[in-house]
Amino acid sequence: MTSTEIPSGFHKAIRWYPPAYDIRVDEVPVPRIQHPDDVIVKVKLAALCGSDLHIYRGHGGINSVHVCGHEFIGEVVALGESYGSDAQGRPALYSSLKVGDKVVSPFTVNCGECHVCRLGYTGRCLDGGLFGSPALDGGQAQYVRVPKAGGTLFNLSNPSTWSSALPEETKKNALLNIADSSLLMLADILPTGVFAALQAINHPKVAPVITGKPWPHCFSKDDVLGNEVSFTESDRILTVAVIGLGPVGVCATVSMLDVLATRKIPFQLVAIDPVESRREKMKAVYNTIDVEGKGTGDFAVLAIDEAKAKIGEWTAGVGATAVLEVVGNTSAINLAYEVVRAFGVIVSVGVHGEPPLPMSGRQLYNKNISLDFGRCPSRAMFPPAFDLLVKRQDVFGGIGEPASLVDRIVDFSQAADIYRAFEKNQIGKVIFDPWK
Amino acid sequence: MTSTEIPSGFHKAIRWYPPAYDIRVDEVPVPRIQHPDDVIVKVKLAALCGSDLHIYRGHGGINSVHVCGHEFIGEVVALGESYGSDAQGRPALYSSLKVGDKVVSPFTVNCGECHVCRLGYTGRCLDGGLFGSPALDGGQAQYVRVPKAGGTLFNLSNPSTWSSALPEETKKNALLNIADSSLLMLADILPTGVFAALQAINHPKVAPVITGKPWPHCFSKDDVLGNEVSFTESDRILTVAVIGLGPVGVCATVSMLDVLATRKIPFQLVAIDPVESRREKMKAVYNTIDVEGKGTGDFAVLAIDEAKAKIGEWTAGVGATAVLEVVGNTSAINLAYEVVRAFGVIVSVGVHGEPPLPMSGRQLYNKNISLDFGRCPSRAMFPPAFDLLVKRQDVFGGIGEPASLVDRIVDFSQAADIYRAFEKNQIGKVIFDPWK
Repeated sequence: MTSTEIPSGFHKAIRWYPPAYDIRVDEVPVPRIQHPDDVIVKVKLAALCGSDLHIYRGHGGINSVHVCGHEFIGEVVALGESYGSDAQGRPALYSSLKVGDKVVSPFTVNCGECHVCRLGYTGRCLDGGLFGSPALDGGQAQYVRVPKAGGTLFNLSNPSTWSSALPEETKKNALLNIADSSLLMLADILPTGVFAALQAINHPKVAPVITGKPWPHCFSKDDVLGNEVSFTESDRILTVAVIGLGPVGVCATVSMLDVLATRKIPFQLVAIDPVESRREKMKAVYNTIDVEGKGTGDFAVLAIDEAKAKIGEWTAGVGATAVLEVVGNTSAINLAYEVVRAFGVIVSVGVHGEPPLPMSGRQLYNKNISLDFGRCPSRAMFPPAFDLLVKRQDVFGGIGEPASLVDRIVDFSQAADIYRAFEKNQIGKVIFDPWK
Repeated sequence: MTSTEIPSGFHKAIRWYPPAYDIRVDEVPVPRIQHPDDVIVKVKLAALCGSDLHIYRGHGGINSVHVCGHEFIGEVVALGESYGSDAQGRPALYSSLKVGDKVVSPFTVNCGECHVCRLGYTGRCLDGGLFGSPALDGGQAQYVRVPKAGGTLFNLSNPSTWSSALPEETKKNALLNIADSSLLMLADILPTGVFAALQAINHPKVAPVITGKPWPHCFSKDDVLGNEVSFTESDRILTVAVIGLGPVGVCATVSMLDVLATRKIPFQLVAIDPVESRREKMKAVYNTIDVEGKGTGDFAVLAIDEAKAKIGEWTAGVGATAVLEVVGNTSAINLAYEVVRAFGVIVSVGVHGEPPLPMSGRQLYNKNISLDFGRCPSRAMFPPAFDLLVKRQDVFGGIGEPASLVDRIVDFSQAADIYRAFEKNQIGKVIFDPWK
């Protein structure tokens, strides 16, 4: 069911030019439906992300002009022919998505119906791709074409199309009350933070602390212990470190706190960053969380050396059980290795580069390390990310305030300057309004 | 409660001399109780292990003469003063271990009562150590001192001191019927194989296939699906690869098959080794497993190229969900990376060396890989390893037969020749009888 809502002619888009550091706002043809599974979205707001900088700097291995941006929220203005009441067996949105629906997109396209997507690993869909690359024009534009939109999009106008732990009423009210600039955080940073936290809390190496049963009994139903000595109360305290407090690191920390508070797990959590302004932001965000949401435990925001000392003090030198690495470089992984305990887990959601891991195979063996790497399956993470956004509306709301994750909303004309300042760390996360 | 059973004077021990390839059988003082937690074990049988070869070759970073060997079974002949009826709150063996008890030891010492041991991570006990190193004389001797024996030893004369899924009667009968040469497999190779399999089956990235619920719903109790498309039957087939079919790899494969059969998980499992004799051994072992124990699925034993093709065929090119790496070198990890799927897990129990992982951070990110490294927590693995040994008595029994994991039992006088031949891969796993 197509629509006549797509304007003909041209629209404004932020585009990157090779080789590097070259951002321009161009008039380009409005995207059209190319495939029956496509949808055209009129973009209300689009965000700039730290990972946009890889391509910006010319490090993305990319040589072609393309529309930037992989975080956008908007309104459906045109549907391909696949959309209609008889789209049986396909993701629900093929039957239910309507022109006018408000949608937010994950940063990658996923079909939602291949083997990989069915397992929930939407970030590696066999037909997937990253918005804001030569293969797929991005969302820092007035309109964007979303391939496989039935699997990809998150329909904020139709809460029945996703699972939530929240009551129906709460969902609906949230959708009325939460600003688009906050809902936009569902595209990338919030799901990625939730992904980091969920990988950590569900990791087998965390299970003994949480269950109070030693490895490997923590996986079985039987309670019979033989030679083993019972846990002490302090054995049940989960020690976690988060390395990197950019926007994703803040989301990961907030998500981790939420999981620990919800499950009533006693904890010791340290959020680490060498940059003071980032630590201040983290503290401001933490202060917006209510007492119940803060859970039962010790929380600290520290620079590197102080954090190492704190973890040593908390664990009598044994180390953190889980370390979330939210930076994507060698020194962050080195720090993670240093502070994690033997039989601990490092969860890395940072976009790593060419260097290999800095540890030898023997070092990995000697510490019985587990590691999780990779891109967040953003679409699959939307439901728990949405729930977290609803619970922490105060945290993720606001523009330009001490606890805000978004620095400012600007119009396209400032794009080149904004990219430049963002790349130099002079400003925080920025949202573009393509219609300002 | 000490004993007068320790002979005075000297005993025979196999010792390594620096710099390399120098094995001698020496008369050395019989070990004495040095600490109240010690126990002296009269060794009935001691095995040679592939990981003994690191030190043998001079690669262990070791320069002192020491008694070799980390796999032994024997009889308690002397107890330190800690052992007695009033050892409250300590591992049960401090109260119950008796002179005359038959015991098998894990390859590392563990106290069983520090924070790390309480969590079940006995392989990294804060007071731990590896048998067969300058710090701790090993078990290829007539007698051996076991520090922290109350936490370390596995008491085959007292089944009530460990948990089992088997009925009491079955446990007792097994202990009467299983040969010591088979029980000796509990020291290292069988627990390590079980450890590999359990890490894989309990990994979060395996959960969707097993639960039939997409990530991250597979961790929660809720069944409500929104946009997601239901699993097909073939989505529920777990594809696993085992790389390396030395004795530990065979144990890992047998353990994996047992888990899959017991939990009725449909599977596709390929066991991989470039060496034909090892593949033949794996097939012979597989053929001793009864129909029920073979589970429901496809099992193949293949060389590398054929295995890659098979995995590609089985998964339409997506890759294996879990890969067990049981070698401990770079090419094995490379192969694991190649055949694992995006959002898969590589479980490595091999003793890795100095080189870093061969993959770049970007490659790890791009495939959303999870990795588990490290030494098996052998004492913690004994209960499930024992259960598996009981179920597969036919598999792990026998000496020198096609399906046997043990090539021969020899006396100490052959030690130097045996090490030499084992190092050159001319013979399989060997057991020493110190009293022959």
